[in-house]
Amino acid sequence: MSPKITGELLRLLRQAMRNCKYFSEPIHAYIVPSGDAHQSEYIAPCDCRREFICGFNGSAGTAIITEQHAAMWTDGRYFLQASQQMDNNWALMKMGLKETPSQEDWLISVLPENSKVGVDPWIIAADQWKNMSKALTSAGHSLVAVQDNLIDVVWTDRPDRPSTQLRTLGLEYTGISWQDKITMLRGKMTERKISWFVATALDEIAWLFNLRGADINYNPVFFAYAIVGMNSIRLFVDLKRLSDTVVRDHLQLDSPRRPELSVQTFPYESVYTELQAICAALGPKDKVWICDKASCALTQVVPKAHRTPIPYTPLCLSKAVKNATEIKGMKMAHIKDAVALCELFAWLEKEIPNGNVTEISAADKAEELRSQQKDFVGLSFPTISSVGPNGAIIHYRPLPETNRTLTVNEVYLIDSGAQYIDGTTDVTRTVHFGTPSAFEKECFTYVLKGHIAVSAAIFPNGTKGHLLDSFARAALWESGLDYLHGTGHGVGCFLNVHEGPCGISYKTFADEPLEAGMIVSDEPGYYEDGSFGIRIENVVLVVPAKPKYNYRNRGSLTFEPLTLVPIQVKMMNTELLTQKEKDWVNEYHRRCREVVGVELERQGRMEALQWLVRETQPVV
Amino acid sequence: MSPKITGELLRLLRQAMRNCKYFSEPIHAYIVPSGDAHQSEYIAPCDCRREFICGFNGSAGTAIITEQHAAMWTDGRYFLQASQQMDNNWALMKMGLKETPSQEDWLISVLPENSKVGVDPWIIAADQWKNMSKALTSAGHSLVAVQDNLIDVVWTDRPDRPSTQLRTLGLEYTGISWQDKITMLRGKMTERKISWFVATALDEIAWLFNLRGADINYNPVFFAYAIVGMNSIRLFVDLKRLSDTVVRDHLQLDSPRRPELSVQTFPYESVYTELQAICAALGPKDKVWICDKASCALTQVVPKAHRTPIPYTPLCLSKAVKNATEIKGMKMAHIKDAVALCELFAWLEKEIPNGNVTEISAADKAEELRSQQKDFVGLSFPTISSVGPNGAIIHYRPLPETNRTLTVNEVYLIDSGAQYIDGTTDVTRTVHFGTPSAFEKECFTYVLKGHIAVSAAIFPNGTKGHLLDSFARAALWESGLDYLHGTGHGVGCFLNVHEGPCGISYKTFADEPLEAGMIVSDEPGYYEDGSFGIRIENVVLVVPAKPKYNYRNRGSLTFEPLTLVPIQVKMMNTELLTQKEKDWVNEYHRRCREVVGVELERQGRMEALQWLVRETQPVV
Repeated sequence: MSPKITGELLRLLRQAMRNCKYFSEPIHAYIVPSGDAHQSEYIAPCDCRREFICGFNGSAGTAIITEQHAAMWTDGRYFLQASQQMDNNWALMKMGLKETPSQEDWLISVLPENSKVGVDPWIIAADQWKNMSKALTSAGHSLVAVQDNLIDVVWTDRPDRPSTQLRTLGLEYTGISWQDKITMLRGKMTERKISWFVATALDEIAWLFNLRGADINYNPVFFAYAIVGMNSIRLFVDLKRLSDTVVRDHLQLDSPRRPELSVQTFPYESVYTELQAICAALGPKDKVWICDKASCALTQVVPKAHRTPIPYTPLCLSKAVKNATEIKGMKMAHIKDAVALCELFAWLEKEIPNGNVTEISAADKAEELRSQQKDFVGLSFPTISSVGPNGAIIHYRPLPETNRTLTVNEVYLIDSGAQYIDGTTDVTRTVHFGTPSAFEKECFTYVLKGHIAVSAAIFPNGTKGHLLDSFARAALWESGLDYLHGTGHGVGCFLNVHEGPCGISYKTFADEPLEAGMIVSDEPGYYEDGSFGIRIENVVLVVPAKPKYNYRNRGSLTFEPLTLVPIQVKMMNTELLTQKEKDWVNEYHRRCREVVGVELERQGRMEALQWLVRETQPVV
Repeated sequence: MSPKITGELLRLLRQAMRNCKYFSEPIHAYIVPSGDAHQSEYIAPCDCRREFICGFNGSAGTAIITEQHAAMWTDGRYFLQASQQMDNNWALMKMGLKETPSQEDWLISVLPENSKVGVDPWIIAADQWKNMSKALTSAGHSLVAVQDNLIDVVWTDRPDRPSTQLRTLGLEYTGISWQDKITMLRGKMTERKISWFVATALDEIAWLFNLRGADINYNPVFFAYAIVGMNSIRLFVDLKRLSDTVVRDHLQLDSPRRPELSVQTFPYESVYTELQAICAALGPKDKVWICDKASCALTQVVPKAHRTPIPYTPLCLSKAVKNATEIKGMKMAHIKDAVALCELFAWLEKEIPNGNVTEISAADKAEELRSQQKDFVGLSFPTISSVGPNGAIIHYRPLPETNRTLTVNEVYLIDSGAQYIDGTTDVTRTVHFGTPSAFEKECFTYVLKGHIAVSAAIFPNGTKGHLLDSFARAALWESGLDYLHGTGHGVGCFLNVHEGPCGISYKTFADEPLEAGMIVSDEPGYYEDGSFGIRIENVVLVVPAKPKYNYRNRGSLTFEPLTLVPIQVKMMNTELLTQKEKDWVNEYHRRCREVVGVELERQGRMEALQWLVRETQPVV
């Protein structure tokens, strides 16, 4: 990895900062956040502005350029990578270390009095703008919105914004028509006396209209905005995409059945002026719902007195609770995914002794096997395929220069998933193709105990996911071990593999209570630096439980695993398992054999079937 | 219980609201909060203003009086009691019910345009003022500070503010001199570049100066404020209390050894003018630490630019981490407390069959037995002594009209504690003097499993208490049961039985991580309405644990029970216990027998010793 040469780029950028064509006065500092205008987790190439200016391509990082300095803030996952990708025009600001100043404090320390700090208001979220602006103002500076993005000014070969073909999803996949989703949304708006709702998150817009795209890798979304009123629906999207008659029919663009369900379409870029027009016509009591995480540019269009900010939108919550059709689809997707993984493991077992399977080729094989399954669309995130010490790097992704060969001597961890038209998968298995050490088995078993403790937990309706996080850690804690990541995240249905508003984490965020139909991951781990990594991840569905009693008629919930891939018995120290835990493992393996076995047989994949049968023998 | 007649009082109060002697304009509504000027949990009789005006004497409630209306907000614990204690001049506002408006919404709905809402700025906390003021302002009204308390204006026979004798505590009890505490506080102030610290919480002031009082029932505190600068210490207290030479010597009032440790004393009431004088002399960079929970009156004296609000003070955190001397004292106090409880249970066993032991007489007996112990000062809270269905009322306190007789047919729950000069206790035991039902035993055993799960938990340094709450519930949840209160609270050392900033609760508040030396309660329960209540409570000390591994050198913690009172084996369904849980019970009982047995023998309390030996036989 050689660093990007940025001297000339920075010269040009500083020129633009001084150029009053872009802002009425010279800008003394310019902030380049990571994200796009929709605060997406994964972003399209045209939005990789921070990477363009400094060279660092990790998922999190903010660059700030002043006349004299250029600095980039990122967290512990990326210190090494960032230092390798950036040249010495850049100072690496290591977040989380005591001596590292915050962006605000650093700006205040280097700027001359009364400075202007510029940022593109489209790619900074409203809540971030507020905090940064407050800090700068209190030190005599000001944060200013520069409408033209100054990186784009110097980025001569910037890729176009993707505009992939839209895919319509029928009721057989979505369970609810987009018309009914609009009606449900309006019901919630009426309940809260809201006149307009502005949708900016790409997965929410895709979900609302039962449409999918491929604008961003791994995430089947498309660039769009939507504004929904009680009698109007406005969709902002590259209009070329709407020439397809299937899409036109789906949205009933040419023959809407009911006027209040007629979709008006506008170019993607006109959301700003259209929202301005809507706001100009607001009555004194009209309220507009817009998420805290929406861009500052769009948020500020809505006058403060009319703005009802929300930590997450009603679409986010509706989307999280899957309906019966979505659940059926997710189950199907997981069975197909399990078929591919059983084949992968059977193949690995055979091939590894030959010494020519690497982290990358194993990941490629997994993708190839998945792609043979019906309705496969693509991966749901970059495969983490890691051997031995690489497994201890939590966000590892194999690169040619780090690529290790799989052997019978090291632990192998593969965290992978796919998008199928009927659902999204995300599964991690940790296996050994030779003889694991006693310590590896011990750690694996603690992780397994944590996985089971969450998966088998029974808890009252109304419980928030963060209350379950410690169950995943108790066995590790008892031996003085732990893992430094959350235990689970929401999973979309043929949508983003990470979605809100629920999850299982020691970090208590504004999470909503778990309810039946929500789908989350259960993925405790243990990482021994320089040696091995262990993670056991299933995607699980929240389902009603029927315990002996029903205190205050609250009802109880538990989880049903959707992932049906055997957990390697060879890695377990069964002496550390209680009878209840062994029963859980045996029942889980029985279901894998029963459900996935039938499908393997149907597909005639007999070697994988033999592997499955062997790997699901009961433990005693 | 007959309601208080309030017609004439309300007439007088409304007269005062219109009287421009108290505020320059007439007041259209007047808010009467629960608390005192120090936001104490328990308050002195002179501060029971809400009770005086409406008759309701529960611990939580806010009264609001307008020209036309009088309304009182309280929560579910008190709906019945409030409706019985208030006459029909008052509307009971049932908090937590959907149809109940918030105080703000109610005010906005009943007030004429542009109204003034008055409140005593001394008894409303700064953060509450801020929220109420914002809501009223946005509706065109205003919240105004009325310096004279209008309840006091009409309360002709209001008791005086207590001014009990101060008690000095030597190093043998506190472990650290007040001078060293001041120096430690100044160290933290220097670290954060703070010039002044304003102490308003009574337990923090008592702790800081190693003084105790008896101004408030159950809480050994005294009315005072303190302001600490880098070179000055100001104590605001009824000066009569400082005539005692022991107190004068303790505070070195007449011969301070070092000028920066010289305590200047002022009358309690002059804190306001003295803080004004300090603030008038602040340099541009001087910062003043004051807690969010301090009164609005005092907070607003500090100009906003100089104010550094904190959710809890450095004293609160220092006080929570007990030193070796305090821990030794707490252990001693708990042994003495156990002696009294062993005697109580032996006595109850003998007396109950005679049919003349009631909830009240049992509580009185417990107090009598505790008072025989060395350095007994008083109870640490009103004893909850409850039989059968009364046990299901979580905040029950026996009254003559509810008093039940203890029998061999019903479960008995006693939650009680005392103040000794060397420590504070708080213990709950649930027992049956006949034959418990299978369901009672089942529930008791789930509660016990939860109690053990917390008490025996090993967790990493830096873990917050709320992450342990679910451990206490897992066994109940598995059977569809739960309890609707937190699992534990911080406990003071010869101070308030409830103290921050740590605790164990599903409610995530701004709690600090647990650290060795902190003391909390572990008290899961189960309440079957109309039938019985179960709670098992020990006070436990956070201590270092030494598990097999030490991930990232973080270190681990666990709990050591300070409470050493047998847990009734008769109430356990031992078939539901794991071997590990049985081992925990047997080891706990072995320690009770060993430690408390020696003390019972030393005190010659042989019947109680026999009871202890019998009740601590191993379970198999």
